[in-house]
Amino acid sequence: MKLNDVLAAIVPADREIYKQAVERTSNLIMPPRAMGRLNDLSEQLCAITGTLKPRFDKKGVFVMAADHGVVAEGVSAFPQEVTGQMIGAFTMGIATINALCAQAGVMVVVTDVGSVSDIPAGKVSDKAEYLVKKVAPGTKNFVQEPAMTREQAEQAVMTGYETAIEYIESRGLQLITTGDMGIGNTTPSAAIGVVYTGQSAEIMTGRGSGISDKALALKTRVIDESIKLHRPDREDAIDVLSKVGGFEIGAIAGAMLAGASRRVPVVVDGVISAAGALIAAGLSPAAKDYMIAGHRSVEPGQTKMLEYLGLNPLLELGMRLGEGTGAVAAMGLIDSAAAIIRDVATFEEAGVSGKG
Amino acid sequence: MKLNDVLAAIVPADREIYKQAVERTSNLIMPPRAMGRLNDLSEQLCAITGTLKPRFDKKGVFVMAADHGVVAEGVSAFPQEVTGQMIGAFTMGIATINALCAQAGVMVVVTDVGSVSDIPAGKVSDKAEYLVKKVAPGTKNFVQEPAMTREQAEQAVMTGYETAIEYIESRGLQLITTGDMGIGNTTPSAAIGVVYTGQSAEIMTGRGSGISDKALALKTRVIDESIKLHRPDREDAIDVLSKVGGFEIGAIAGAMLAGASRRVPVVVDGVISAAGALIAAGLSPAAKDYMIAGHRSVEPGQTKMLEYLGLNPLLELGMRLGEGTGAVAAMGLIDSAAAIIRDVATFEEAGVSGKG
Repeated sequence: MKLNDVLAAIVPADREIYKQAVERTSNLIMPPRAMGRLNDLSEQLCAITGTLKPRFDKKGVFVMAADHGVVAEGVSAFPQEVTGQMIGAFTMGIATINALCAQAGVMVVVTDVGSVSDIPAGKVSDKAEYLVKKVAPGTKNFVQEPAMTREQAEQAVMTGYETAIEYIESRGLQLITTGDMGIGNTTPSAAIGVVYTGQSAEIMTGRGSGISDKALALKTRVIDESIKLHRPDREDAIDVLSKVGGFEIGAIAGAMLAGASRRVPVVVDGVISAAGALIAAGLSPAAKDYMIAGHRSVEPGQTKMLEYLGLNPLLELGMRLGEGTGAVAAMGLIDSAAAIIRDVATFEEAGVSGKG
Repeated sequence: MKLNDVLAAIVPADREIYKQAVERTSNLIMPPRAMGRLNDLSEQLCAITGTLKPRFDKKGVFVMAADHGVVAEGVSAFPQEVTGQMIGAFTMGIATINALCAQAGVMVVVTDVGSVSDIPAGKVSDKAEYLVKKVAPGTKNFVQEPAMTREQAEQAVMTGYETAIEYIESRGLQLITTGDMGIGNTTPSAAIGVVYTGQSAEIMTGRGSGISDKALALKTRVIDESIKLHRPDREDAIDVLSKVGGFEIGAIAGAMLAGASRRVPVVVDGVISAAGALIAAGLSPAAKDYMIAGHRSVEPGQTKMLEYLGLNPLLELGMRLGEGTGAVAAMGLIDSAAAIIRDVATFEEAGVSGKG
């Protein structure tokens, strides 16, 4: 399948079902819209899935891992070997995303789309599926040259798309999200955020896993210079991804397009997944209809990116881990919103008196 | 059992385990405290339960229902008959709290502690347990006379306590919350909030289920006049409850004391449960250690009440329903926080490199 065929298959969410959901919400046995944003979310879930009885028994997170040439500049607090070590931790089932997913009944699919490490594919534990689909062993240092070729950018997106489609179809996943692992990946994410939102690198750049003031200034300058060098064209998402992106960011965008094309809601995690969402929405504006923002990250750029996408996060708990953790933490609220529209009676059904 | 014996059995949460939890959190394979407030919550859960491996497989909500004499003043948007109708909806399993609890695996225990309706006790559906333990059929109109006697106030608290203890012990509940049903009950809740926080009735009074500007002004005046008439003594929580409270608010306080006495975390719901929490904390300051605020309600007084209690809510989604819905919606986050401290490996356990 070609990327253009993928994009052609994505249609806006169902306006007619949305109207019916708004009508049903107004009749539920509660004061008008007394569940607040969960009522809004109920309606969005109906529009996405095309039913007034949404249900999400099978859920999955696609954790995309890759490395970044730009770490040579000193933009991260952790050494690059940690990407591979964390892939190992995911496959062993001992990382934070595994713990949250085991608790919440969410399957974990880890895909190495371009790390410099060399962990063979295959099942290591029953806590995660692990695939190796490397585009290349790490991107180039984009302060010097484009992070990847256009072909590699398309390949990264299609790798994420195909992986997600495979699991949506074979496992019947009804709700998905994306996670990331890649030392240095808040740098390309912030750069993508600058390109789309038009905000300055100063505003969009954060401390990632916890860098010093000096490293923050350096990281900001790296982003600024890279954008000046490459002049990414935000009307061309593949151009943006290839010049200042990352393989896992492309794969995240692809997984999001897979959800949108199958009318499966996609929860957006932190700043790296938000960057993936910008690329996905750049490729297909209708894909935004299928996105739900899980949480507001500590990373300053993420808020601006979500605003640009028209998304308002469900949680605001000071999280900044990635891996998909903030999105999985929000999945219980999505189940709650589905239960409200699906299972609560109307005043008429219940025989309860309305407002006096 | 007497109330004083209940209070004597409540001890502060475990400081030693708390310190161990903070130490373990600092070693988990993530940047320092990268799960933000979920890391804080993990540590509180350890201190409450006295273990570094908290787990909450069995959960329950105690929905306390009662009526209020003060509705004669015109403080509510809904007629008083709705209290009984909603009790019926809870027992049939068709209300919002039922839908959320069925989704999240939380048992629903509905207790009529003083409604004017007359629904016989017993199992109506498999969606809820239903008990009738009426203190009296509704409180008095507290703008004219105390809402209840001191004896009734103690009885309301002990009814909630005994109900919760019974289910904690017989069903092994590990995480509980409270919900409320009672047309007019934001009025006594706001009054209790005024007494404890010292804020004005103007600040503490909200629109409840949705009253007009005119009714809001009336409601505020009713609260103001009642407090001037009775001068409740905030050093004596039974005095406050008896003068301007409600039976369900007392029962909620009692259920919270039950949780604290059994080292079971108690999630605080909206403004009515927050009023119950003020009474519980007034009776036993140590009970606050066991409280977790589920959400920030639209009711303005609830925020002030949570601040007074030192609680910072997990969710802020514009909810205002009560029934325990905001607390149950937050329970997934509590499970997430438990999973993080319980199941995530440390850097050493995982063999992952630390910060460079």
